[in-house]
Amino acid sequence: MEKLKVAVLGLGTVGASVPLILREHQEKISQVTGVEILVSKALVRNIPAKKALAEEYDIELTTNYEDILNDSEIKIVVELIGQIEPAKTYILEALAKGKHVVTANKDLLALHGKELISAAKKAKVDLYYEASVAGGIPILRTIANSLAADNITSVKGILNGTTNYMLSKMATEGSTYEEALAEAQSLGFAESDPTNDVDGIDAAYKVAILSQFAFGMSLEVGDIEQQGIRGIAQADIQMAQQLGYEVKLIGSAEKNQGSVSANVGPVLVAKSHPLASVQNEMNGVYVKSSGVRESMYYGPGAGAKPTATSVVSDLITVAKNSRLGINGYLFNSYVSDTKLTSATEIKGKFYLSIQVVDKVGQFLKLTEIITGTGVSIDQLIQQKSANDSARIVAITHEMTKAQLMTVIDQINDVTEFKLIAAYEVLDK
Amino acid sequence: MEKLKVAVLGLGTVGASVPLILREHQEKISQVTGVEILVSKALVRNIPAKKALAEEYDIELTTNYEDILNDSEIKIVVELIGQIEPAKTYILEALAKGKHVVTANKDLLALHGKELISAAKKAKVDLYYEASVAGGIPILRTIANSLAADNITSVKGILNGTTNYMLSKMATEGSTYEEALAEAQSLGFAESDPTNDVDGIDAAYKVAILSQFAFGMSLEVGDIEQQGIRGIAQADIQMAQQLGYEVKLIGSAEKNQGSVSANVGPVLVAKSHPLASVQNEMNGVYVKSSGVRESMYYGPGAGAKPTATSVVSDLITVAKNSRLGINGYLFNSYVSDTKLTSATEIKGKFYLSIQVVDKVGQFLKLTEIITGTGVSIDQLIQQKSANDSARIVAITHEMTKAQLMTVIDQINDVTEFKLIAAYEVLDK
Repeated sequence: MEKLKVAVLGLGTVGASVPLILREHQEKISQVTGVEILVSKALVRNIPAKKALAEEYDIELTTNYEDILNDSEIKIVVELIGQIEPAKTYILEALAKGKHVVTANKDLLALHGKELISAAKKAKVDLYYEASVAGGIPILRTIANSLAADNITSVKGILNGTTNYMLSKMATEGSTYEEALAEAQSLGFAESDPTNDVDGIDAAYKVAILSQFAFGMSLEVGDIEQQGIRGIAQADIQMAQQLGYEVKLIGSAEKNQGSVSANVGPVLVAKSHPLASVQNEMNGVYVKSSGVRESMYYGPGAGAKPTATSVVSDLITVAKNSRLGINGYLFNSYVSDTKLTSATEIKGKFYLSIQVVDKVGQFLKLTEIITGTGVSIDQLIQQKSANDSARIVAITHEMTKAQLMTVIDQINDVTEFKLIAAYEVLDK
Repeated sequence: MEKLKVAVLGLGTVGASVPLILREHQEKISQVTGVEILVSKALVRNIPAKKALAEEYDIELTTNYEDILNDSEIKIVVELIGQIEPAKTYILEALAKGKHVVTANKDLLALHGKELISAAKKAKVDLYYEASVAGGIPILRTIANSLAADNITSVKGILNGTTNYMLSKMATEGSTYEEALAEAQSLGFAESDPTNDVDGIDAAYKVAILSQFAFGMSLEVGDIEQQGIRGIAQADIQMAQQLGYEVKLIGSAEKNQGSVSANVGPVLVAKSHPLASVQNEMNGVYVKSSGVRESMYYGPGAGAKPTATSVVSDLITVAKNSRLGINGYLFNSYVSDTKLTSATEIKGKFYLSIQVVDKVGQFLKLTEIITGTGVSIDQLIQQKSANDSARIVAITHEMTKAQLMTVIDQINDVTEFKLIAAYEVLDK
């Protein structure tokens, strides 16, 4: 059987799982592609450290990328180094040499996707990156293939496993933010510097890629409003539970009459909503559309084997395309003009949590602020805290983002009020 | 732009939605396929009844299939008549004439899939049927494309919206089986003869198709053990709720070392399991695999627009294939020898609900029967019922299907015992 040779850049846990999966499923893969896909070379930093692995799978190791670039037998480069450089240069060089590229690099696709996609188009080669969003969930391919006949109006996802794990622990075990973070770190879910996860940056990258597939719109990461879960209060998570909600870090992109709005932030998700059932380190992407109406895709968002499985499914696609002579078509061919929705058009229900000095009249003052901006209140609850402070929690009816800004400004103007949280509310 | 002409057989609610969706998303579809897909003819029984619709979309109506078959401009036939004949003959004739076929007909694919698939292969044309399983959920395409790099070990789905709606109502509103059925019928979810839904036949058809994609194995519908929800007791649903479970009608196919077992039946699904969150008329398919480990696909299982959206996504695939000159490849190209798992190898936890004459010693008698077959008991609960009868409920630890048969036989041998339910238990 014809062999299709692949080079892997980076033999970390994901990279090492690629040859494993190719070998495990060789028969099935050959059956659907008509070729034998194998990793023949790998770029590593430390050859001795990867020697045993290389011998097991008969992979030639190199520390010099030129060895891969100039090997005309290598038809596909799998980039698993991560971050921007040198990954970006490596990919551009591979594409220019006529090699297909498969990558799991969300940072790169979110920040430089346009440039990479146009380079692949110019070179008439394939560029696939299913694993860059929600690891093992085939969400990009699903949107590109199966929802092409549909009009997606919103995509909301639990896109970061680390923060979802932390929020699950805080809800079910009553852990504090610090305890949950320490536990996520000890399990290897969170990096020692958790910034990208807890500040919502990782989720924002994924929202940028999802928007491209769902709406054909290329959002800059800077266009995506970001609020993380850093320092999120146990009291707010418990209050949400009591009110029938789970607090989730949601990455969202919504279409409103030709424009799109995107953000990442903590959201109170009604327990009856499918996203509320996505627990621990799992991911879920909930899609609203005019045809199918609602669908959700659930699975692991990270992990070596799920991610490598996604990478290999991309390799299978490239192999099929090569066999059929149809390389060079875009992973996502839906393109539309990008226009951002203004804050006066973005609507939502919101949860406001405010620490107040515990004295008569505070309830009234908050009510006046909210109703004064023309917003009606769904629920208002006062909770006694320690010392002389209390916590007032309000859930509003639907309001615009512009109205929310006004309410927040006015709350901040009251010296006896301290705004703890302003989260969106997602009912079923 | 080049036009790709389609004929629709049957202009019911789904059929009428196909030209609507094609028109609504014409621009997006043309962008991804490079052609304009349009319905030019439709086969109907009553031309006057469909006249207004036909005029709106410029569709030529006919009551004679020959008009479609002999129209060489029609490249794709969409079969939406349902059931076996004349649908089967129509499809075979279209394939033989070199026309591609898209169908939503699960009965036909489950019962005669092999014959249709080999006819399409012989004629080198496309045959797609995404809408035949779980309506709006792109589960077949997902398994065929994205899980090709994976080894699926089990597929468990809520595949019938009618029965899921009924079970949801019984659980949340305390309705009896008869009330829930009447409500489903009044909402148009259930037919006046609900046999196919409530006896699990519809779900079994879908399991047969899913098995073909997940395991490459062609199961006969007769190989799929079927138990429906007809007459399911409110008492068992409430007991399940108390024990932390939702009762769901689950269609399941599992691989065990090269053989496969498949069945449809009521299952107690732990509330923490993703399938437990699939409520009302929604469908969900939960996939276990060695690479991705667990994933779930959630969406509407029926309805005109979701089903028609799936049909149009198949039309887009055929249009892309035609443009690239790659028609005639199988929707699912994974084929493996079919072997059924024997009852001594199928394992599970089970819930047994037994009506007993209320007197001392019954608890002991049931315990003796279960433990006598080498099975240990997880939970045992006795509930006082009306009159002189009581209900004993047992949840076992893992046992084989063969052991279950022995236990059931012995329960049936005790004149004071009446077995009400024997359902599998699915923990998270």
